[in-house]
Amino acid sequence: MNKPVHAAGDGLVTGATLVTLDGDAGYGLVEDGALAWRDGIIRFAGPRSELPAELAGDAIDAGGDCITPGLVDCHTHAVFAGDRAGEFEQRLQGADYEQIARAGGGIVSTVRHTRAASEDDLLAQSLQRARALLADGVTTLEIKSGYGLDFDNERKMLRVARQVGDELGIQVRTTFLGAHALPPEFAGNAEGYIDAVVDWLPRLHAEGLVDAVDAFCERIGFTLAQTRRVFEAARALGLPVKLHADQLSDGEGAALVAEFGGLSADHVEHTSVAGVAAMAEAGTVAVLLPGAFHVLRETQLPPLREFRARHVPMAVATDCNPGTSPLLSLRQAMQLACTHFRLTPEEALRGATVNGARALGLEDRGALRAGLRADFVRWRVRQPAELCYWLGGRLAEGVYAGGRRVA
Amino acid sequence: MNKPVHAAGDGLVTGATLVTLDGDAGYGLVEDGALAWRDGIIRFAGPRSELPAELAGDAIDAGGDCITPGLVDCHTHAVFAGDRAGEFEQRLQGADYEQIARAGGGIVSTVRHTRAASEDDLLAQSLQRARALLADGVTTLEIKSGYGLDFDNERKMLRVARQVGDELGIQVRTTFLGAHALPPEFAGNAEGYIDAVVDWLPRLHAEGLVDAVDAFCERIGFTLAQTRRVFEAARALGLPVKLHADQLSDGEGAALVAEFGGLSADHVEHTSVAGVAAMAEAGTVAVLLPGAFHVLRETQLPPLREFRARHVPMAVATDCNPGTSPLLSLRQAMQLACTHFRLTPEEALRGATVNGARALGLEDRGALRAGLRADFVRWRVRQPAELCYWLGGRLAEGVYAGGRRVA
Ligand SMILES: [Zn+2]
Ligand SMILES: [Zn+2]
Repeated sequence: MNKPVHAAGDGLVTGATLVTLDGDAGYGLVEDGALAWRDGIIRFAGPRSELPAELAGDAIDAGGDCITPGLVDCHTHAVFAGDRAGEFEQRLQGADYEQIARAGGGIVSTVRHTRAASEDDLLAQSLQRARALLADGVTTLEIKSGYGLDFDNERKMLRVARQVGDELGIQVRTTFLGAHALPPEFAGNAEGYIDAVVDWLPRLHAEGLVDAVDAFCERIGFTLAQTRRVFEAARALGLPVKLHADQLSDGEGAALVAEFGGLSADHVEHTSVAGVAAMAEAGTVAVLLPGAFHVLRETQLPPLREFRARHVPMAVATDCNPGTSPLLSLRQAMQLACTHFRLTPEEALRGATVNGARALGLEDRGALRAGLRADFVRWRVRQPAELCYWLGGRLAEGVYAGGRRVA
Repeated sequence: MNKPVHAAGDGLVTGATLVTLDGDAGYGLVEDGALAWRDGIIRFAGPRSELPAELAGDAIDAGGDCITPGLVDCHTHAVFAGDRAGEFEQRLQGADYEQIARAGGGIVSTVRHTRAASEDDLLAQSLQRARALLADGVTTLEIKSGYGLDFDNERKMLRVARQVGDELGIQVRTTFLGAHALPPEFAGNAEGYIDAVVDWLPRLHAEGLVDAVDAFCERIGFTLAQTRRVFEAARALGLPVKLHADQLSDGEGAALVAEFGGLSADHVEHTSVAGVAAMAEAGTVAVLLPGAFHVLRETQLPPLREFRARHVPMAVATDCNPGTSPLLSLRQAMQLACTHFRLTPEEALRGATVNGARALGLEDRGALRAGLRADFVRWRVRQPAELCYWLGGRLAEGVYAGGRRVA
């Protein structure tokens, strides 16, 4: 698997342990499996002995390696300029998060760097991170705006996000997160800023730059009422919504996003039982972000028991961002989800595939099944639990998006 | 830096941010630095403007990238057969560590697989892990025996460890850890097993297979008196000792290894103030192993304040092993040391270089200074704190051991 099989996105692998995730539970393991695809679409995923004759032909022998669906990283802020390793160091030298924020650090510093960067520069920096994510198995990547906080710079971020997808040959889903933080020029005027956000949204959408709309609903972010205004603007355009909800406190964000039939409520550490019930009712996915939990050394676990009991699908994502989750591997996020949240490896893998896709409203991927996109990863492992077990390492042997090798 | 500069281990890099770690504190940063080496030894590490004329010549331009000393992973069990991802999964499905052990899992399972593996097979499996460690910056690797637990298989492990070093072009330091666990054939007869260990040691040493001697001193391992017998056998051969000490309880292991002038006490979560004092007196290094702490979700922090107050050098290592620390990256161990133990990034880096070398009794490496080995790593980062900040990612741009590129 050192080169694309066919330029056209056709191919066949045999001798693989397929981790199909087909069905509602279980890995859907197929030993000695065959995976065949045509024009970027899976045509067969099952036992080699059942491969239809018309799909037989030259095959790559996977030698027993596991093949999983391509990973879907459904929550990232991977487009930004400037890292914040300096702040990370200051925190470990004793400064607290709020001291750093008051000293002009924190998100304000990322906004400053992102605004100052040219589109090319922003692309170059973002590509490096996206390449790292791909190299560890990601084939669909969500990227949010939210460090521009004015029209031109939000637009720049979303354009760069699209270019990342084009450059790397994967699908990037863009999320407009204008309501991420209050920019300095709107200090003390959050309502005025929400007016601006609501004004920018249709213009950005008209350029094809917006797949979904998000907001940061939190005591230190925007209120429920302000978030509602953003969501109403999204609904007017037929755009799906998702929300940074209940990360630091129960702000009833999960219930709000569920009320709008939202794709996902993300973080959700402090979501109440009522919030979980509303999510279950609406089919809203819970996106777990163990990277920020790890880095911030949080202790409040998301209501996992409730999510399981009410069959709220759980996704896992990197939350790749320079402040609270400098994660460059979704597989590491899966490891952290197992360690910190006690997800089983199967739940973590499902969260980074099937349920990640669902959190993006994508029904054409996330499992190995005929008719879905040929997004898959061959891993140098014998059983899927290894993907969550090893910390570090280079396990991906070949990463395919739409049937073409991308890493 | 895509190929070795000279086959002979000579070379020059300029335009680097050197992270020399020269001196007792601070990164020892040199902006616009030059690093020159001859025959595998650093001849100059300092400002480019001060590069002696006789060392000038064709140079690689590092473009502002950081160059650190090569990382020293001073505590690993990287030679083993069979992983234990299945147990990892069972634990997350609800089984506890002791249940798994009683069911024939745990270390017994690794011993079974390691004994059954041929030397070639063991080498192939171990090389894959060692390559992952190198790829993230390791240039000196300690590897322990301890899954053979009989003469032939302990010997096989140590031989494989040496071969790993030869294959990869790095130095592997071998540690005899016969007293790791009681093998089934000595059940109920720990004293008899220690007799055997003490008998094997000089024979293995005569073959050049032993650089140091270690034991697992713990309620569930060997007693202080049994450990003492092993240490006395080591002392009789002039071999330095180190110890798995005080991981699960304060067993006074740190004080014992200090009494023998040992290189290091490792884990040390439960080490008492008296133990720390003994270590300080003896110059014994505290080897912190945050991987096992993370995976086992321990809460008892090592006595960091005491180590700092008494100037006990702190090293950081992966503890790469299939049961409690499936870490394939020393940089990830540094990240975990910062997150869980609140080490500063500088302490973590010092722990994985200078102090890691010291924990192996090696004085010829661990910093960038004329006269030391040309073991160094060029990283795609602008400041050293990034090495601890990013989780995942592929930051190493070139890894050099003895002046030759190895990854
Ligand atoms: Zn986020
Ligand atoms: Zn160990």
